[in-house]
Amino acid sequence: MPSSPLPEPIVSAPDTSEMALRLGRVRERMAGEGLDAYVVFCPDNVFYLTNFHNYVHERPFVLVVPKEGALRFVVPHLEEEHVRVRAVGEIELVRYFEFPAPEGEAWSDRLREALGPAARIGVESVCPLQVADEIPGTRVRTDVVDEARMVKTAYEIGRLAHASQVVSAGHQELMAGCKPGEMIIGLYGSVTRSMTARMLGDMPNANMLASSFAAVVQPPSVSHDPHNFTDVFMQLEEAGPHVSVINCRVNGYGAEIERSFFLNTVSEAARRPFDVMMEARRIAFDRAQPGESMAEVDQAVRDHAEKHGYLDALLHRTGHSFGVTGHEAPFLAVAYDRVIEPGMLFSIEPGLYLPGIGGFRHSDTVLVTEDGNLSLTTAADELDAVTYAR
Amino acid sequence: MPSSPLPEPIVSAPDTSEMALRLGRVRERMAGEGLDAYVVFCPDNVFYLTNFHNYVHERPFVLVVPKEGALRFVVPHLEEEHVRVRAVGEIELVRYFEFPAPEGEAWSDRLREALGPAARIGVESVCPLQVADEIPGTRVRTDVVDEARMVKTAYEIGRLAHASQVVSAGHQELMAGCKPGEMIIGLYGSVTRSMTARMLGDMPNANMLASSFAAVVQPPSVSHDPHNFTDVFMQLEEAGPHVSVINCRVNGYGAEIERSFFLNTVSEAARRPFDVMMEARRIAFDRAQPGESMAEVDQAVRDHAEKHGYLDALLHRTGHSFGVTGHEAPFLAVAYDRVIEPGMLFSIEPGLYLPGIGGFRHSDTVLVTEDGNLSLTTAADELDAVTYAR
Repeated sequence: MPSSPLPEPIVSAPDTSEMALRLGRVRERMAGEGLDAYVVFCPDNVFYLTNFHNYVHERPFVLVVPKEGALRFVVPHLEEEHVRVRAVGEIELVRYFEFPAPEGEAWSDRLREALGPAARIGVESVCPLQVADEIPGTRVRTDVVDEARMVKTAYEIGRLAHASQVVSAGHQELMAGCKPGEMIIGLYGSVTRSMTARMLGDMPNANMLASSFAAVVQPPSVSHDPHNFTDVFMQLEEAGPHVSVINCRVNGYGAEIERSFFLNTVSEAARRPFDVMMEARRIAFDRAQPGESMAEVDQAVRDHAEKHGYLDALLHRTGHSFGVTGHEAPFLAVAYDRVIEPGMLFSIEPGLYLPGIGGFRHSDTVLVTEDGNLSLTTAADELDAVTYAR
Repeated sequence: MPSSPLPEPIVSAPDTSEMALRLGRVRERMAGEGLDAYVVFCPDNVFYLTNFHNYVHERPFVLVVPKEGALRFVVPHLEEEHVRVRAVGEIELVRYFEFPAPEGEAWSDRLREALGPAARIGVESVCPLQVADEIPGTRVRTDVVDEARMVKTAYEIGRLAHASQVVSAGHQELMAGCKPGEMIIGLYGSVTRSMTARMLGDMPNANMLASSFAAVVQPPSVSHDPHNFTDVFMQLEEAGPHVSVINCRVNGYGAEIERSFFLNTVSEAARRPFDVMMEARRIAFDRAQPGESMAEVDQAVRDHAEKHGYLDALLHRTGHSFGVTGHEAPFLAVAYDRVIEPGMLFSIEPGLYLPGIGGFRHSDTVLVTEDGNLSLTTAADELDAVTYAR
C-alpha cells in the first residue's frame, strides 16, 4: 500500500460552494441524457444535494432538479421550518398541506407545478411507483445522482476520514472490552455510546436522523452466518474466530471496520482459512487501484479462494462503497464491470464462512488515491495481533 | 371513553396459525382483484407476512404471494440462514447469488421463476421502479397487504398493548427526569436504554432490526416546530410548553406517547391554547368510534380550532395508525374518507403550534374497540398533572 498521508478530517457542515459542485456534477449527467428535470425521492440523494435528511414515512419529500435555476423541494407544511434549519444551497421550498390532502392541495399537485414545462424527466431506479406515476411527460429511469456520488469531493473525503476515525476509536474500545463470558449487548451499549459522544463532541449540531451506530461481535458459534445477530445475550467464548462489526453513519457519512479475532488461543482449524482470507485481502488491496476493473478485483479473490478449495465459502462480493451511506454502489463484484477511479471508496472485505469453524473477514474503509489506495480505518490485522490474551 | 379492560400484553413470537390468518386476509383481497400473484418488497409488509425483517440495502428481498401454495421468498445467498432463523410459516426460499450478479444468476432471474405462469400480478404503491420493471405480465398497483394490516388481529393487539406498556413506562421515567437545565441528550440516553432493556427482558430474542427507541423533549423555544430536534444539547427551561416525544418500535410493533408539559409554572399565554388543544382531543376521542368517518373526526377538530381562531396553528392531521410500524395508514385526516372499524389503532394528537408561545400536543396509542376506543398508553394529561414542580 502506498504511503500517501491520511486526508485531514473535516467536521464542518458543507457550504454553498460544495453543494454547487455536487449539483454541477449531477447536471452534467442530466445534460448528457437530455433531461429537462430530475426527480429525487431517495433520502440519501436528497441529503447529498440539500444537506437535509428526511425521515421516510407517508408524507413525501420530493426534490426537483431543473436543468437550470434553483432546486425546488416539495415538502410537507409541517416540516418547512425543519428543512430551512438544515438545508444548504439555493433551494426553493414548495409546501403542500398534508398527506392525505384535499384535491388540489396534495404533494402531487405541487410536484407537477414544480416540474413546470419540463418534458423529459429523469427518475431514480429506487423511486416508488406512487411517486413515478405522478410524473408527467417522458419518464427516463436513470441514476444520475448515484453516479455523481461515486467519486467523492475533497470535502466528502474529509468527512469520510472523520467517520473513519470515529469507527477506528470505537473498534479499539470494542476490542479492549472483549473477553470470554462478556455479553454482546453490554459491549454494544458502551461502544455505541462512546462513538455517539465522540461525534457530538466533534459536531454538536450533528443530524441524528443521518447518524447510526452499530458495534457488535459474533461469537464463533454464529460467525459463519454473516448477518446473524439474533441473540444479543450471547457471550464471547475462548478462541474464535469471533467477528467484530462496527458499521456507522457519522452525521451523514459511512465507515466500517470488521475483524475476525481470537481470545487467548487459536484453534488449529482456524489457521488455514485465516491465512487464505489474509492473502485474499492482500490481493484485493493490491488490485484495487485506479484504472483496474472492479469485476477483476473480485474475480482475483474468487480465483484465489477456488485454488485453496474455499470457493463455496465465499458468500459475498469483495466490497461495497461508502459515502452518504455505509453501503452503496459501486461494488467490487464479478458482475460489476466498471473502472476504479481516484476518489472512490470501497470496503475491502473478502470473507470465508465455514459452518462448524466460523467466519473469516476483515473489513476496512479504503480510499482510492491517485496512485493506489489508503485505508482510512486503522485496526490490527495479523493473526498474532488479533489474538487477545484475556 | 368506555371502560373496556385493557387487552393482555403478548410477548411471544407469532405462530404459524397467526401467519396463516394474515395471509388469508391478503389472499381474500387478491381474489377480489383477480390477482394470480402479489409481489411484496416493502420491509414492513415482508415482516407482516413472514416475521423476518430485512435491512434495506442494494440486495433485494422480494416476497412472492401466489394465489395458492407456499410463499416464495427471493433472498440473497448471504442471508439465507438468517431468514431461516426468523421466518414463521410455510415459506419456500429462492436464493440468488449476489448483487450485482452474472447473467442468469440475479435476483430478477429468480423472481421471474418464482412468479411462474402468473399473468396478473399485484404490486405495492411503494415498490421501487427497479423491482416493478422486472415483473412480467399485467402489473396492477394495489395495496392489498397494507389494507389487510389496517385491522389488527387479536395477537397484534396483544403485541401493541405490550409496546404501549414499554412506552408508558419510558414516558414516566422521562417525566421524572425533567427539570430546568437538564439536557435533551442525557434524558434520551437513559430513557432509551431503559426501554431497550425492558424489551429485551420481556423478549430476549427481540429483533433489533425491527426495534427503535426515541425519547426526546422539545424545550419551549422550539416546540412550535414539531420535527425540530436539531440541537441535542438544548436544555429544558422554566415553564413551557415543552413537548415530550416517545416513539418506539418494540420488536416490530409501534406505539407512542407525546405530552405538552410545564416545569414549575405555566405562562399565561399558554393556558388558552392548552385548553383548546385539550378540548380538540376530547372531540377526537369522542368521535373516533366504529362506524364514524375518519375524515369527519379531523374535520371536527379543524372546526373547533377555527372557532377559537387557531386554524392556522394546526400543522397536521389528527392522527395516524400503528401496527408493524409506528406511522402508517389509515389516517384521521380530512381527505381520508374511510370508516373506522374495531381493531384499528390510531394516534389521537391534534396539535396547535404557535411561534413565540410553543407547541400544544398530547398523543396516545388508541385502540378502536367494539363500542368505542381505549388508550393503550397511559400518562397524565390535565394541565395541573403535567405541570411538574422541580
